[in-house]
Amino acid sequence: MAFTPEDYKHMKKALRLAAKGTGFVSPNPLVGCVIVSDDGTEIGSGYHERFGKAHAEINALNAVREPDALRGATLYVTLEPCSHTGKTPPCAATLKELPLARVVIALRDPNPKVDGSGIRMLQEAGIQVDTGLLEDEARKQNEFFLHYITTGKPFITLKVAQTIDGYIAAPDGSSQWITGKQARTRVHEWRAKYDAVLIGRNTALTDNPRLTVRHVDGRQPKRVVIDGPLSLPENLNLFTDQYEDRTFVITHNEKAFREKGDPMLRMLSPQNFSGQTLLLRASNGHTDLDQAITLLGRHNIASVLVEPGSDLLRAFITQKLADKIELFIAPKLLGGGTRSFIGLDIQRIEEALKLRKVSLETVGEDILVSAYF
Amino acid sequence: MAFTPEDYKHMKKALRLAAKGTGFVSPNPLVGCVIVSDDGTEIGSGYHERFGKAHAEINALNAVREPDALRGATLYVTLEPCSHTGKTPPCAATLKELPLARVVIALRDPNPKVDGSGIRMLQEAGIQVDTGLLEDEARKQNEFFLHYITTGKPFITLKVAQTIDGYIAAPDGSSQWITGKQARTRVHEWRAKYDAVLIGRNTALTDNPRLTVRHVDGRQPKRVVIDGPLSLPENLNLFTDQYEDRTFVITHNEKAFREKGDPMLRMLSPQNFSGQTLLLRASNGHTDLDQAITLLGRHNIASVLVEPGSDLLRAFITQKLADKIELFIAPKLLGGGTRSFIGLDIQRIEEALKLRKVSLETVGEDILVSAYF
Repeated sequence: MAFTPEDYKHMKKALRLAAKGTGFVSPNPLVGCVIVSDDGTEIGSGYHERFGKAHAEINALNAVREPDALRGATLYVTLEPCSHTGKTPPCAATLKELPLARVVIALRDPNPKVDGSGIRMLQEAGIQVDTGLLEDEARKQNEFFLHYITTGKPFITLKVAQTIDGYIAAPDGSSQWITGKQARTRVHEWRAKYDAVLIGRNTALTDNPRLTVRHVDGRQPKRVVIDGPLSLPENLNLFTDQYEDRTFVITHNEKAFREKGDPMLRMLSPQNFSGQTLLLRASNGHTDLDQAITLLGRHNIASVLVEPGSDLLRAFITQKLADKIELFIAPKLLGGGTRSFIGLDIQRIEEALKLRKVSLETVGEDILVSAYF
Repeated sequence: MAFTPEDYKHMKKALRLAAKGTGFVSPNPLVGCVIVSDDGTEIGSGYHERFGKAHAEINALNAVREPDALRGATLYVTLEPCSHTGKTPPCAATLKELPLARVVIALRDPNPKVDGSGIRMLQEAGIQVDTGLLEDEARKQNEFFLHYITTGKPFITLKVAQTIDGYIAAPDGSSQWITGKQARTRVHEWRAKYDAVLIGRNTALTDNPRLTVRHVDGRQPKRVVIDGPLSLPENLNLFTDQYEDRTFVITHNEKAFREKGDPMLRMLSPQNFSGQTLLLRASNGHTDLDQAITLLGRHNIASVLVEPGSDLLRAFITQKLADKIELFIAPKLLGGGTRSFIGLDIQRIEEALKLRKVSLETVGEDILVSAYF
């Protein structure tokens, strides 16, 4: 299939529209849609705006003022129209009743409930379906969803900020600020994009972070803290601020969990936070991370930004649980301090863990390396 | 002075020509020259091709076929014409006798022997002189020369190849190859560009490197090894290959130096290499690095590429003797091994050594960070 420049133009717009749903549609995919009449005029467009609300195709159709214009029209959509009834009726069933000539799809939906059946439903209704236009862009845009829908686990990104010589803190322990303001703003943008931000117990104790979106506009993420012994102080920001209902605590201490879970005890406890505490089995005395992220997936969390200290970073890497790394490198030298990556059980240069699909960006005065495991 | 697009075009060509002298003119500057007649036609061009040979202006003049065309012509030159007699007569004196209307200069020569006197000589002859066209590019192109002519010391660049987590060798000591083939080729390009390549005793012992230009065409650099005790094995490549006459050994062991320097003993010694051994005073038991590079400057070495191990790297940085760093970062993790930068005597994050004028480039699969101290 050779696509025309007009095809590209309309699909690019559909992708731009889809991106506007970022942060609000998960665990659904980002989807954008543009409808063009048989004379080449755009007659409607829309995107999936919010989880549980109308899909992109329906929003685009609703924007069409003159239904007759749909006769012979082409519909561009960034993901295969759904064929199953979820929160909303199947889009493919709606589309096949329309007098469309052609549907152009960027990416086939790997969701086992769709996976080509939306395409078939349209084709059987006599509509020409062309797939694969700007497919790579569409795949990249929905990398969280595609991972989640095929594995059931959230897409995991590790965020690290280090000096160019690989230190995340100076010898005296100070780490604020290794990177500059623009890098820190970028982290806030990510927080608005990922379903949840996850930290370990040590970071919670040492930094008492809020993990909220502040320097940019955006929706607040869920917050997850791994607290194996379930003994973090109850006055931490995560448990007391206005977003406390978005905080998850993951523990492997069954005894403490039962005690804190007791409704009578909770009433008496100063920790009366409205988030959730989740119990998992321990693995060598630690909370089992694989179980933890699987459980987060079951709570509809499709993407997690991990802001780890050294221990959690090592755990995610050695247990091969991370999908991506966003590594800020500040162009400065410390020559000592806390190292970013340690204990990966690598002895020889040939065994080094190679990062894939590496991309580089300058963010303010810092370097951002984005790569996949 | 507002320069025209034509001015830019001719000066860019002059800069391109100047670059062709790279590796062959030091400790002279790179200089290129383009001559344009009063009707805008280029009538001659040239560059400084080799140390001791004709300067760029003279080569450009020699390329002009019809001397009458010089009447009212404009001469573009990347560096202020010299006004002193060196290996060749002063160019400004030659130019001022010509019927030129205008001379356009990218960069004023900070050489104390010139420093504006070339410009004045031309102006006094009634020639219009415009300075500063593409000055930044010209300064960058001659950064070695400009440093050397103003300080008497060579421009020092540290070359480091590390993993993204800051290791230059794996736990088992292996370091070949951290970076990929294209990064290693780039190092050979640098060797052809710097007057000398410098290593420490440990690197000489461990790697027995040749430090020659092999993967690319280019002239062979001088090679310098710091051997404090003057006890490196005499069969190292640096002392025995066909470029042995380009090897300098720097020592602080006066006794060993006197013994090896004795003509009778040298005849008897298997180490009969035709390079030079230089004696310096020790500083805390080490060869004094500042003295070493000053001495190299006196031997007409205007630029040194240091390919250091950890100790030499630390010494150059803590003694503030380095001007630039070329840091290859391989996108892989080791999580342990030999750290790239240690012992910089920094305790707090605010004391971190900030790199300046950072630029980024992808070289094959690796990242190249170029920056200044």
